[in-house]
Amino acid sequence: MIGFEHIRKISRTSPSKIALLIMDGLGGLPHPETGKTELESATKPNLNRVARDSICGLIDPVGPGITPGSAPGHLAIFGYDPVQYHIGRGVMEALGIDVNLKPGDIAARGNFCTVDDGGLVTHRRAGRISTDRNTVLCRLLNNISIEGAEISVLPVKEHRFVLILRGEGLSPELSDSDPQQLGVAPKRMEALSPEAEKTAEIVNGFVSQAGSLLWGKTPANMVLLRGFSRRPHIPSMSEIYKLKPAAIATYPMYRGLARLVGMKVLPAGESITEQVDSLRRHYAGHDFFFVHLKTTDTRGEDGDFRAKVQAIEELDKALPDLLNLDPDVLIVTGDHSTPAGLAMHSWHPVPFMLKSKWCRPDNAAEFSERACLTGGMGRFPATEIMSLAMANALKLDKFGA
Amino acid sequence: MIGFEHIRKISRTSPSKIALLIMDGLGGLPHPETGKTELESATKPNLNRVARDSICGLIDPVGPGITPGSAPGHLAIFGYDPVQYHIGRGVMEALGIDVNLKPGDIAARGNFCTVDDGGLVTHRRAGRISTDRNTVLCRLLNNISIEGAEISVLPVKEHRFVLILRGEGLSPELSDSDPQQLGVAPKRMEALSPEAEKTAEIVNGFVSQAGSLLWGKTPANMVLLRGFSRRPHIPSMSEIYKLKPAAIATYPMYRGLARLVGMKVLPAGESITEQVDSLRRHYAGHDFFFVHLKTTDTRGEDGDFRAKVQAIEELDKALPDLLNLDPDVLIVTGDHSTPAGLAMHSWHPVPFMLKSKWCRPDNAAEFSERACLTGGMGRFPATEIMSLAMANALKLDKFGA
Repeated sequence: MIGFEHIRKISRTSPSKIALLIMDGLGGLPHPETGKTELESATKPNLNRVARDSICGLIDPVGPGITPGSAPGHLAIFGYDPVQYHIGRGVMEALGIDVNLKPGDIAARGNFCTVDDGGLVTHRRAGRISTDRNTVLCRLLNNISIEGAEISVLPVKEHRFVLILRGEGLSPELSDSDPQQLGVAPKRMEALSPEAEKTAEIVNGFVSQAGSLLWGKTPANMVLLRGFSRRPHIPSMSEIYKLKPAAIATYPMYRGLARLVGMKVLPAGESITEQVDSLRRHYAGHDFFFVHLKTTDTRGEDGDFRAKVQAIEELDKALPDLLNLDPDVLIVTGDHSTPAGLAMHSWHPVPFMLKSKWCRPDNAAEFSERACLTGGMGRFPATEIMSLAMANALKLDKFGA
Repeated sequence: MIGFEHIRKISRTSPSKIALLIMDGLGGLPHPETGKTELESATKPNLNRVARDSICGLIDPVGPGITPGSAPGHLAIFGYDPVQYHIGRGVMEALGIDVNLKPGDIAARGNFCTVDDGGLVTHRRAGRISTDRNTVLCRLLNNISIEGAEISVLPVKEHRFVLILRGEGLSPELSDSDPQQLGVAPKRMEALSPEAEKTAEIVNGFVSQAGSLLWGKTPANMVLLRGFSRRPHIPSMSEIYKLKPAAIATYPMYRGLARLVGMKVLPAGESITEQVDSLRRHYAGHDFFFVHLKTTDTRGEDGDFRAKVQAIEELDKALPDLLNLDPDVLIVTGDHSTPAGLAMHSWHPVPFMLKSKWCRPDNAAEFSERACLTGGMGRFPATEIMSLAMANALKLDKFGA
């Protein structure tokens, strides 16, 4: 694969439009009774029709056998090497609540937890306290003041919060305090490099003060921190591809990922129908659209085969409105597989199809794991999608003389 | 893929012969009426017969989505990483007129152009003056003398020429003077590194004198320069593969590329029949033959689907004479696709087949984009062709103990 430095030189702006539809967790596994995957079980005439005019394949977001988190899964599809561009757990959590992190900010994922009188962890999630209770407790923790950093504690959902440190000379090179097991005390956070010693003092001070403030507030009488990280420097999609990209995603985390790579975040509403409607309204203003469907992943993680099939069928019903816009390039794929049978993200490669006037369609006659296996792209790394999309939109010049 | 340093150690000389037939721009796209590509539309019993005895596949010369120029397309097939071994536009232009560039020579692509009284470009190609007129004007420019470099101006075709600078301490690290747009003045060429400052002075001096000499010679009253480059250092195919390689190409640019990688250039005549005849006559003297067919690309670039089909059929008719030589390894492929529908080089992967006694044939029953997709090589990088060819010629020893 050629690097960004080359793509930058050969990419050019043109009126053609690219629509990238990511069905989160799309790939599945055969149902034990029918032998068919979720995608193979769904009634999806529109997706199948697109497949017949497309070049199909199966993508590996990170590599064979590697189960991607949401960040690497999406970054790979946007063209970024998911191993080189690492997004820490803390940053992901902050993106998930639409926090606009500044470049130097340190973010950590926090849990409220329960400790016994001896200070040993008895419940890592404080019995999953309500989000309301979480909000009250975060307000309390925001009173903590430590020299050297401005501290914010932001509630997420149930027992989860985000800790953000802002200041000069901070570093995310810290070990976690979360011991990931019961019956032991929260760990002291250690500086993993000399530059992080000041930050280690600050966060250990924070935990110590948090312990005092939460004393007696059982079950949420302590905090656990992990995944200290900082927003990575990522060249924007407009720098690399000269695109004017936009994102239409109903979940904050995906809006955050889109913002990280320089996309403009458009209104999404709450359903795929509203998302396609937003796409139509903003169609003139951009030349690249990332539309994110969350339900396929959620139903897969629920382990609900039938509900995941329905999520695919709902998408299929909304597809004609998107097709009516007639984008020059339409891509449908997923950021990873979430087979209902496993009820979690998995390593299986993900169905992919790209339709354009110039795509050289293959013999794949439907959109499914099995059909994509015979497609013209074969099995390929997700990081190659963007150059293929740009080529099909006639937005890439010839490489070399 | 293993690198040259390893191939060098395990390659060996043997009497077996490899014939590499490159059909330039071979890959195509389906005709809107028939759904068949150029290759699928051609009557080609001989190519199909070879396919049945071959291992087939589809090559990516540079990578998915990347449209290769002629240099990267060929270098990849010869085994060289086309991103690492970059051939500049000026060098390619010089190769295209059979100029034998010395290692330190700087070459630039030149255009005669038209400027108005204010010095602003009104036509970047001087109305495509005749080659005869070009030759007269180049003779004039050869009178320019500047201290520090020996200057040659060589006509190419219509408005195109090559500028060559020979001397000590020169550098190709220069920006272009060609503004690539109308209504602005030719740009001053800037040194992109301190070592290039002397060369920048020389070329700016050349352009200034050229402007004086061409004054009033409208439409060709100015010159534009771009693609300053120097012949890259490329290890030869005999160093890497211990081959005695030869090239049979009717077009100078491909002879030049062959020379760059250390091939001996044999007479080619003007048609594929004459090329195969030359192959027969020189068969005893070499063990690797690169035969280059240009017409498939030319007809594709003309946008003439039917003519490209005919070019394939002509090749097919000439094939039996080549097959009669019974090379131990025969490869048929292309350096990139040139679909008639696009009328330009494209990014689509290119059909490939390799026939040898030891190739492990697959089920592909004809030579076409669709059939190659099901071939034993699948879709693969063109840079892997040479080790496969060497292996099938039993010219590679075991790797590792």
